[in-house]
Order: sequence, then C-alpha cells, then structure tokens
Amino acid sequence: MADSPNCDLKSLSPLQLFERVTEQGDKVRALKAGKAPKDEIDAAVRMLLSLKLSYKTTTGQDYQAGLPPRDLILINNGTAEEEDEDFVDPWTVQTSNAKGVDYDKLIVRFGSSKIDTDLINRIERAIGQKPHRFLRRGIFFSHRDMDQILHAYENKKSFYLYTGRGPSSQAMHIGHLIPFIFTKWLQEVFDVPLVIQLTDDEKYLWKDLTTEKAYEYAKENAKDIIACGFDINKTFIFSDLDYLGSSTGFYKNIVKVQKHVTFNQVKGIFGFTDSDCIGKISFPAIQAAPSFSSSFPQIFNDKENIQCLIPCAIDQDPYFRMTRDVAPRIGYPKPALLHSVFFPALQGAQTKMSASDPNSSIFLTDTPKQIKTKINKHAFSGGRDTIEEHRKYGGNCDVDVSFMYLTFFLEDDDRLEQLKQAYTSGELLTGELKKVLIETLQPLIAAHQERRKQVTDEMVKQFMTPRKLAFEF
Amino acid sequence: MADSPNCDLKSLSPLQLFERVTEQGDKVRALKAGKAPKDEIDAAVRMLLSLKLSYKTTTGQDYQAGLPPRDLILINNGTAEEEDEDFVDPWTVQTSNAKGVDYDKLIVRFGSSKIDTDLINRIERAIGQKPHRFLRRGIFFSHRDMDQILHAYENKKSFYLYTGRGPSSQAMHIGHLIPFIFTKWLQEVFDVPLVIQLTDDEKYLWKDLTTEKAYEYAKENAKDIIACGFDINKTFIFSDLDYLGSSTGFYKNIVKVQKHVTFNQVKGIFGFTDSDCIGKISFPAIQAAPSFSSSFPQIFNDKENIQCLIPCAIDQDPYFRMTRDVAPRIGYPKPALLHSVFFPALQGAQTKMSASDPNSSIFLTDTPKQIKTKINKHAFSGGRDTIEEHRKYGGNCDVDVSFMYLTFFLEDDDRLEQLKQAYTSGELLTGELKKVLIETLQPLIAAHQERRKQVTDEMVKQFMTPRKLAFEF
Repeated sequence: MADSPNCDLKSLSPLQLFERVTEQGDKVRALKAGKAPKDEIDAAVRMLLSLKLSYKTTTGQDYQAGLPPRDLILINNGTAEEEDEDFVDPWTVQTSNAKGVDYDKLIVRFGSSKIDTDLINRIERAIGQKPHRFLRRGIFFSHRDMDQILHAYENKKSFYLYTGRGPSSQAMHIGHLIPFIFTKWLQEVFDVPLVIQLTDDEKYLWKDLTTEKAYEYAKENAKDIIACGFDINKTFIFSDLDYLGSSTGFYKNIVKVQKHVTFNQVKGIFGFTDSDCIGKISFPAIQAAPSFSSSFPQIFNDKENIQCLIPCAIDQDPYFRMTRDVAPRIGYPKPALLHSVFFPALQGAQTKMSASDPNSSIFLTDTPKQIKTKINKHAFSGGRDTIEEHRKYGGNCDVDVSFMYLTFFLEDDDRLEQLKQAYTSGELLTGELKKVLIETLQPLIAAHQERRKQVTDEMVKQFMTPRKLAFEF
Repeated sequence: MADSPNCDLKSLSPLQLFERVTEQGDKVRALKAGKAPKDEIDAAVRMLLSLKLSYKTTTGQDYQAGLPPRDLILINNGTAEEEDEDFVDPWTVQTSNAKGVDYDKLIVRFGSSKIDTDLINRIERAIGQKPHRFLRRGIFFSHRDMDQILHAYENKKSFYLYTGRGPSSQAMHIGHLIPFIFTKWLQEVFDVPLVIQLTDDEKYLWKDLTTEKAYEYAKENAKDIIACGFDINKTFIFSDLDYLGSSTGFYKNIVKVQKHVTFNQVKGIFGFTDSDCIGKISFPAIQAAPSFSSSFPQIFNDKENIQCLIPCAIDQDPYFRMTRDVAPRIGYPKPALLHSVFFPALQGAQTKMSASDPNSSIFLTDTPKQIKTKINKHAFSGGRDTIEEHRKYGGNCDVDVSFMYLTFFLEDDDRLEQLKQAYTSGELLTGELKKVLIETLQPLIAAHQERRKQVTDEMVKQFMTPRKLAFEF
C-alpha cells in the first residue's frame, strides 16, 4: 500500500476503501505485535483513522471489520427511509405494488439507460423493419451500450448475441420464453451468431440435484429453446458441464474473471456468505465468460474483440455489471445489454412467474383445458366486484394479469388498444378479457408443442456441438 | 437444522459447530424480526446458548461471529504457549530450528501416520526389491492409508499415482525433483498409471503472469519432468489451463468438490480472506479433483473407484486433507498419501529451497562450476570454526546442509554412513564433505541436462495429450 493514502482516495469505490481500511488495520496490528518503534505505529494509526474517515464520508456508514459495504443497489432495499423499495436480485423479485416493480426507479438504481423512442426509432432505421412488440410496448425497457452496438452495426461491424437459462427442472413456463422470443427476433433482423448458455452447473450447485440430472434438464430445456425456431447454422447452445470440458477458450476466460473479482465483491453483489460453498462463490465468473468472444474460438476464429449483446431479464443484470467492471481489466470489450421486465405470476405482478409453483405458471406442456382452467381460476383480475360496478367504473389494466399477458403475446397493436379501452370503460368484462387471452395462448402453446415434437435428440446434439457457424470472422 | 442439537454435537468438527452456531444465531434474529411467539424465541435462544457452550468446550475459545476457528494445525503456530512451533502451509515453511522442521510433531499435528519399519518391510515384500533410499532414510516419512494401497496391491487390485507442480518459472531446482524421482520409482516398482498436474492456473491466479506465460512455464517444466525418465505409455502430464477444456470428467469433479467445501472451510485450511479473488478461493477444488479416477475417463475407462496414491511434500497435505474430507460425500474413495520432508535451502534447514532466491538453490540448469561455487560459498556447514577444533570435537551432520543433500542424492548407504562417522569424529573436514557433494551432484545434473536436451516439443505434446495409457481398466 502506498504511504500517502489521500492522493487518490476520492477515486476509490466503497469496496476498495473498505479493503484499504482492512489492510491498514492489519498493518497496525502487525506493527504492534512486532513491537515496532512508537513513531512508526503512531503514523500507521493516523493513516488508519484517516482511511476510516474517508470510508465514512463515502459510504455514510462507520467501518465495521468483516462487513464490506453491500452493493449500493441492493442496500437501498428495505432500509428505513425507502421501505417501499422493490427487491431484485438473480434469485428474488419482490414488490408490494400490484402494478409490479417500478422499472423507472430500477433504471436509476441499476445505473442503466431507458430504451426511449429515439433508440427504438434508430433500431427501426438500422434494421429497416418494424421493431418487435417487446420494444414497442416497453417489455424490453432498459439497456447498456445498445447505441454502441447500433453504431457498429451501422458501420458494418458485426456482433454476437448471448442469452441463457438455468435448467432447474424439465418444465418451462411461458415466461421463460420471453428472452428467447426476443433473441430469435434480434438474430433474424441483425443476422448475427447466437450463443445460449444452459447453467446446469449452477443448478447442481444451488439445488439438490446430481450433475447427471442437471445435464439432463439442460438437454430437455434445449428442446424447448430449439422449438422457438432458432437457426441451427447460426446458433450454438451449450451446457456448462459439457462445454467447459470441450473448449480451449472458455476456462481461460473464467479464470481471468476469477482473478479480477474478490470475495468482498461477490458478497456485495450477490449477498454470498462465508457459509456458502466455494462453487457458488466462483460461479458468477462462469456466467460472465460467454460475454467474451474468445470463449468460443470455434465460432470467432480466436478473435477476442467481437462485441457481445445480452438480452435478459433485468434480474440477471448483477452478473453483467460485474462482467462489465472486469472486461477492460482483462482487455476485452464490455458486453452491451437489453433488459426485460419480469413476466408476472398469474396471481399478480408482485412477483415473477415461478416454475416451482405450478399454479403461478402456465407451462409449455399445459393442455388447452389446463390453460383455460388456470387463467379462469388464478389470473388476478383488475375488474370490479360485481358486473354492475364493472360496467359503471370499468376495470384496471395496470393490475389485470390477463391484460398484462396480452401485452406480451398479442401481436396486433390496434386490437390490444381496443381491448384496453373496452376493459377500462367497463364495456368488456373480466371473463371476456380472459377468453381473449385463452384464445391467444392456446394456439400459441399448441404450436410450440407441435414444433417441440419435431426436435429430435440428434438435433439437440447438433445444436450443442461446438462448431463453426455460418459467419466469417 | 434439526431441533435437538445435542444428539450428535460431539461428532461435529469445530468448523461444523461454528456453522451451527452461526445458523442458529441467524434463526434467532429472524424469529425476533418476525415477532415470533415468545416461547419459540426462548427455545431458539436456549439452543443457541447450548451450541455456543459446545463450541467453547470443543475449541477452547468463545464463539465470535464471522471468525471461524482456524484449522487447528495452523492455529498452533505462533501462539503464546508454543512459540517454537514450525509454520507449514502450501506457501510457507518456517522453523527456528537449524535441524529443520520437527517432523514427528508434524505427524501428530497433521494427524497422519509415520512410515515405520513395518510399513517399509511390507513395501519391500510387496514389490520384491529394496525400498528406495528416500524410504530407507526417512525422506518420505509420513503417510495416509498406504496400508490400504498395499492391501489392494497384494490382492491384485490396481491403483494410480498423482503428483504435480506449480510452474512458477522456467527454472526448476534440485529440490523440485524429489517427488518426481520418488514417483518414478513407485511407478516402476508397482507398474501403475501416473498423472502429473501442472497448476498453471494457480500460478496465473497467484502471480503477476498472463495465462499464456503460465502455460509456457508448464510446458518448459514438463521437459524437466520428462527428463526424469517417465514412461510415455504410462504417464499423462497435464496443464490445468489446457486439460480443463479438453476433459469431460475433470470439470464435473471440480464442481462436485466445490459444492461440498464452504468459504469458512478454505478460510480455516488455507487462511484465505475476504479480499482474496474468487479464483484463489475455489482453486483448492482443482488440485483436489485429479485424486478421483473419473477426472481421467480416457485412462480409466470411466471407472470412478480406482484408488489414488499421492506422493508429495508435506506442505501440500492441506489440499488433500480437504480432498479426503469431501471424497466419501461425493461417492469416491479417499486418496492415499506419501509425504516427504522439505528439501532444505543451501543456507540451512530453517526453510525450504526456493526458486525465487538463486543463491538458496542449485538449479537444474547450473553448470558444474556454478554448482561448485554455490556449494563452497553458501552450503551451511556443521563444521567447527577452526581445523583444530573440528579435528577435536567433530562436525554436526544434523545441521550440515552438504550432508543433508547427500542423504537425498548419494545412493550408497555404506558410503553415507562412513561419511557421517568421519565427519562426526572430525576426521573429515567440511571442505572434503562439500567435495563429495559436488562430485555427486555434478554428474547427476549433467546427466539430467543431457536427457533434457533429448526431450523435444513433440514429446511434450505427446505426454500432454489426453489418451489411453498402457493399462486396461
């Protein structure tokens, strides 16, 4: 450590300051234990006090040994002054608001950028077609560096797409499709390579599963993903358990990330504790590494600087904030991101749809009858208590789950607007709105099931084989 | 957590107890925060107190939140009552005793077993030849489960050898050869497969090195290892950076170990802190995994239960204590171990030879002249201050580094005994003893250099290619 701590303290992050205080504390103890000269000890103590003061000024908190500052994004949740804050991390999404998470606030807290009309128009100009309904309707609402991607694209520089899924069980629900539907569209309009990570190792680490079972889920989930219609010549799907052992580039990037992230950092970002297994603690590097093109030498011809664009739900952002922090330090471009809102549970937008609660979700394996029953029975309604009141005051689309689902799945903008006005005015009843949703989802899921039946084990194997794609780099 | 903590507390390790106390503390806080019924809180608090008492009884220390008990082996070092204890971990070996580390004490502290005459005789019977001088002279002095290996061997069940090296620089010194010389002998007399791990990823994580440089060192070091005379049909040498990306079994075992070891545990065993990078924290699993035969499906035909024997210097034992703790929990046999003493520095046995201090080491690249000069100039002498005193009182072989080196490298037992008596009686002078050592080492190192010259890049590539070896499993 340098002897004059004040020259550059202002440029340090809370965590770096925390580490400086800790180191200096260790130094003071070592000097005392070693019975160093009094003036040396005094100087070290003065520096310690000065560092502690800087820490307090920066974080607004007293330094506490062993307790690094939690990521400020998360620290805001549940503190006294902001009791209504939403809680969002890769494992939990919780809000007390029936309309769902306040995404404008989330943009401010995460430090990302809003996808505004200008950006949507620029995308439309670049690709020469109408933007996807997920963009038109603010379902993908936030981004990081999408303007850079567009600038590169406008100048004929290519990029690649990276998305993924944690294969925790065989059953996928319709919410799981959102990133894949959007990614498929991005791939088509931009004509770029796509890599899809199945984090079976993560599921093995977090759940009571064998590695074999986790890998089996990965292959089953791959079938649903393939059924979304990805082009086999442009798409590589991989399981971590499998690909890590068959790539010359992937592990090298993982270990590079692992060298540049401390336990204090993952503690702050993900809330890990000392009782967590070392697998969880080092896992974030495995989700980070596919953001770098050299993790796929077979696709990118060993090029290290192909820019990456990651479409994902906003709860995955902590992984990629970490990745973007590390990227320049290991000589790689930062990945760009497109963030989606969460897909709400049938019971309401306070939380996201979860595969572990069958009644909160519509599964891709549900029959037309199950779809109908679930929607009729469980979909939270924004309607009034009686038909009379509903006719008089109208329904509330902001909290009505059937209407929310229609914004995801009904392609026709005019029809959606008509439904909104009819429901809000009281002309359309909850049962009628639910019927529209049922009639939208039933054929959509039936078609998915039909396509999935066509996906053979052989096709899965081909998609999951490391190989060159239909692009030159 | 079970509600009755007392049934099995006696069987818990200090660390497990620490984690139980921590969990119970969290539970009490959660109950209080959730305004749980008073009797429920009281019961939880009673259990917390009882757990804290068990912790104190077991460790002799009060429970302190966030401060797990350090591995008792290490905690013994430098405490008030045992100021003379040696310090031994994978990165540091230090003692205040000129004779070197007290290995009998180390056996007690590490909980391993002494290699006694009975075991040496049993080895001799099993292999039908004279045991290696490293066994005859107590250079390999400690073991874990070697009797099991012998029992299996006597019953025609095979095993395999695993050893390794951290390739931190191109220059290897003669101390680095000890495990390889002994492993080569073991391979010959038992006729078993051998895997040699080069932890280039570890060196990348710990040092200021690129992955490319670390991998280059690994290949350079492989040449010196191959020059020891290993049989290419029976030996697989691998770099982690390379093999991890080309094995279907290795990463799966790494992630299995990583799931079963907590940060608290590696903190206790290796002394990691919250400021360490997550790569260091998860690395022990990478040194553990080659202890399991399924990490090498190409050699062992996917068999998971081939027993492993690890010859290594005793400072590597912490990795394998951890491995042996995990093994039964992931369904694998525990690896057996043979531990060597440290190879002393030229300046004396207080520390081991280090490649980073050129004057403490004789390198495999040294010329005959350099060898002569280093020994004459730096080898710590057990002789007297004047020739007269030496003739009268004799020299001390216990602290004389030249004599120590001869116990490692002079094959002839009778000659060694004669030298000892002559030196102890004062008949042999220090200069004469040094001359014997110089004349022993010069041809040995020259021969090594000659063999190393024969090692081509092509041979290195062959040794490092994952493949079947000359054994059926």
